[in-house]
Amino acid sequence: MIDRKLQSTYDAGVAERFLTMNEKLTGLPEFLGIRFVEFGPGRLRAELEVRPELLTPFGNMHGGVLSAACDHVLGCVCYPHMKPGQWAATTEFKLNLLAPVSEGTVVAEAEIASMTRTTAVVQIKISNKGRVVCLAQGTVLIREPKTPS
Amino acid sequence: MIDRKLQSTYDAGVAERFLTMNEKLTGLPEFLGIRFVEFGPGRLRAELEVRPELLTPFGNMHGGVLSAACDHVLGCVCYPHMKPGQWAATTEFKLNLLAPVSEGTVVAEAEIASMTRTTAVVQIKISNKGRVVCLAQGTVLIREPKTPS
Amino acid sequence: MIDRKLQSTYDAGVAERFLTMNEKLTGLPEFLGIRFVEFGPGRLRAELEVRPELLTPFGNMHGGVLSAACDHVLGCVCYPHMKPGQWAATTEFKLNLLAPVSEGTVVAEAEIASMTRTTAVVQIKISNKGRVVCLAQGTVLIREPKTPS
Amino acid sequence: MIDRKLQSTYDAGVAERFLTMNEKLTGLPEFLGIRFVEFGPGRLRAELEVRPELLTPFGNMHGGVLSAACDHVLGCVCYPHMKPGQWAATTEFKLNLLAPVSEGTVVAEAEIASMTRTTAVVQIKISNKGRVVCLAQGTVLIREPKTPS
Repeated sequence: MIDRKLQSTYDAGVAERFLTMNEKLTGLPEFLGIRFVEFGPGRLRAELEVRPELLTPFGNMHGGVLSAACDHVLGCVCYPHMKPGQWAATTEFKLNLLAPVSEGTVVAEAEIASMTRTTAVVQIKISNKGRVVCLAQGTVLIREPKTPS
Repeated sequence: MIDRKLQSTYDAGVAERFLTMNEKLTGLPEFLGIRFVEFGPGRLRAELEVRPELLTPFGNMHGGVLSAACDHVLGCVCYPHMKPGQWAATTEFKLNLLAPVSEGTVVAEAEIASMTRTTAVVQIKISNKGRVVCLAQGTVLIREPKTPS
Repeated sequence: MIDRKLQSTYDAGVAERFLTMNEKLTGLPEFLGIRFVEFGPGRLRAELEVRPELLTPFGNMHGGVLSAACDHVLGCVCYPHMKPGQWAATTEFKLNLLAPVSEGTVVAEAEIASMTRTTAVVQIKISNKGRVVCLAQGTVLIREPKTPS
Repeated sequence: MIDRKLQSTYDAGVAERFLTMNEKLTGLPEFLGIRFVEFGPGRLRAELEVRPELLTPFGNMHGGVLSAACDHVLGCVCYPHMKPGQWAATTEFKLNLLAPVSEGTVVAEAEIASMTRTTAVVQIKISNKGRVVCLAQGTVLIREPKTPS
């Protein structure tokens, strides 16, 4: 049911544009080095490479990197289903960190579990070297453009 | 009850050392620009300044900055109550983002609600310009040193 | 700020009516035996007595009792701030169980952290014999009457 | 990986015994009317029938029923992987309520995402009439017997 609705509201052109944004990351996404890899109806796959700057002095990736990645994909998975000018704002999420990460690629997969015109609930699975390292679940608010266009 | 216990396990010397770490931030804390301002038994106050790099293209602070800040203080508030060599690993937390942030100082206050030898539950309140913008709650695991010293 | 707003939207008459509902509990609240004890602007205090039916075979109160109590006060704390006919629906919450409960009175204190016309974020503290046993945080949606009156 | 481990620690006899417990439910599970339907390695499916006692005056199932059901299956899915005498205590969970429930059968599916000797992270999906109505995620602590045997 949900899948059919997500199929019908999915705009592949928006997804395409997000993929080209990988070339010009700024701010937090640039620091994380998080790249969109693949979009689909209700789905987004993003990746980042572990590098020394993302580790704590103890040699494990800072939990804040994973939580920031969750927040990032939580909103971005929704854009291909939104209208031009709207923006997605995370209002809440929860995560469980299951295993430490110290090297390699981190793969974040976001999936919309439920979406209305104004809100979406999203689940996220983050893996590293074939192992699930983080599970998250949260809510995004779909906001109208700030200034009328 | 808890307060008395936190009072008795609080090591002001460790807190002092954390405060000097503000001078040499690296990695994610450096990117966030998050500085410890004050420690107390079961309490930590940290601050960061909003700067363009922390905003999204929509002009609001990236939710990932707040979630990363939560993860950071969640663990750090525990160190003055831990033994040398131990380290604190966030295992889970949940946050609610209550209002957008676009400028000024972000103040994160963490408070230990409950602590045993191996685990702590911490609550976090983040404010900006006198307004609560984020509430979080999570669990930290206290880990033994990786290699025997 | 929030306090002033909650002060101005608080309807003591509604609170009064909720207190009289203690006499005729039905359904889940009746099974829990949860009674409203005191309302205030943005605040609700409720209590329930531990009784054998609420325990697991291991002699501790079933975690589901505490989570159900959280869900209950999460919505009910909002009613004195809502318009006639509106109803409060929990959309999400998270809880941490800090200590087992096996006897005595369970006291749940809910406090509105942030409220708009359509949503509220609430924090809950549950105590037993002077000890905090559960902390929760969640979101309530304020819904319009189902049928126009 | 995890699956193989869960496969090897799964005790079908324990699962069998839990299924027979449906006949003699007491306490909260009895009030909920929640029956175990099927166990598997790392998996549990439980069901309950909506009945008037589980509804609010607004005609929807009380959110506390769903949260209590989450808490219940969160722990119970672990038992076939635990040692005799050990018990499972939920320490934290988070849920999102996606749609109201007013009649029919409620199906809760719990799945262990990660499990060590002392802890497990579990995800839960609750459906009603073919629609996902609740998603939850939480942590269980595996406790040793209270009294040495």
